[in-house]
Amino acid sequence: MNYPSKLVEDAVNEISRLPGIGKKSALRLALHLLGQEVEDVTELTKSLIALRQKTVYCKKCHTISDTDVCSICKSPKRNESLICVVEEVPDLLAIENTAQYNGLYHVLGGVISPIEGISPSDLNIDSLLDRTQNGEVKEVILALNATMEGDTTAFYLTKKLRKQGIRVSGIARGVPIGSELEYTDEITLGRSIAKRIMFD
Amino acid sequence: MNYPSKLVEDAVNEISRLPGIGKKSALRLALHLLGQEVEDVTELTKSLIALRQKTVYCKKCHTISDTDVCSICKSPKRNESLICVVEEVPDLLAIENTAQYNGLYHVLGGVISPIEGISPSDLNIDSLLDRTQNGEVKEVILALNATMEGDTTAFYLTKKLRKQGIRVSGIARGVPIGSELEYTDEITLGRSIAKRIMFD
Repeated sequence: MNYPSKLVEDAVNEISRLPGIGKKSALRLALHLLGQEVEDVTELTKSLIALRQKTVYCKKCHTISDTDVCSICKSPKRNESLICVVEEVPDLLAIENTAQYNGLYHVLGGVISPIEGISPSDLNIDSLLDRTQNGEVKEVILALNATMEGDTTAFYLTKKLRKQGIRVSGIARGVPIGSELEYTDEITLGRSIAKRIMFD
Repeated sequence: MNYPSKLVEDAVNEISRLPGIGKKSALRLALHLLGQEVEDVTELTKSLIALRQKTVYCKKCHTISDTDVCSICKSPKRNESLICVVEEVPDLLAIENTAQYNGLYHVLGGVISPIEGISPSDLNIDSLLDRTQNGEVKEVILALNATMEGDTTAFYLTKKLRKQGIRVSGIARGVPIGSELEYTDEITLGRSIAKRIMFD
């Protein structure tokens, strides 16, 4: 596309490098920013620079943090005998948002995938096993996605953690609350019957 | 949503103020930027600031421009007897991209809309009538959207321009090339028969 302004062209090129934003959306965003106050655009760019330059990863659980150790790991209100293992930061945020979990976390940074060449040493697994070695941690909850890679990683971690005498659990899989049985996919429904919960 | 990092929270809040980007997409973008090189993020923010601070609107046709008068208005290759009137800058870009038009443009900055309180004086109409008064312009093409407001604006402009002795035309409406008649909406199809083109 030809733009009558080189500045707009540059901005569109930069914005469209973001994931999920094509040239058309980028142009729409650029034109939107053109209509904003200079201060508003400056606020946006300042926060992006601060985000990139000042955000660090917690050295204990590897989540995003403003400080060396994140606010969750530092909190005295958290149950330190419980660690929930997730693949990526958004998974942690999703669980935090339920307000149903009071333990600590550990972000793996991915899952074991031989096809993509991701081996255990590429993930934050050693640091997890370091944390579970101190005797304080009693249980590790594996909250990985139900993919082949997620299951492989869960299997690998379970073996390693059991050797340390740690209890390993996984999040419950089943028919989502509010869903109708009729429209639930057959793998989920089948599993929710096979792994049913006894009421007694 | 609670974020373990205030910096991420700030960035998500800023990004989600952009049109069409919700909190979830904003978080995805923020986490993406976290994984980029500092230089790449700086390039992005620099281009946004430059966009906002240095981009101006062409004082002749009101499109986005790096200079007082845009590259289209300045070009000696353009047919100065022809002005295409569009609502917004993206419309101009879309027409430019067809490489089928060689005249000049005029960006109205919207359409007349009594409901939204937009009257002719809120739009770049006076400057259009100034441009068409000099005797050089022979024809004005109205490339407005086929909405009630677009049609109202076209009617208003046609009256004003005809008084100046300017020929007024509109872009052709009809079945898009490549579309099947069967699936064309009935208003378009009906109009394409009523306003058919004679082959002789």
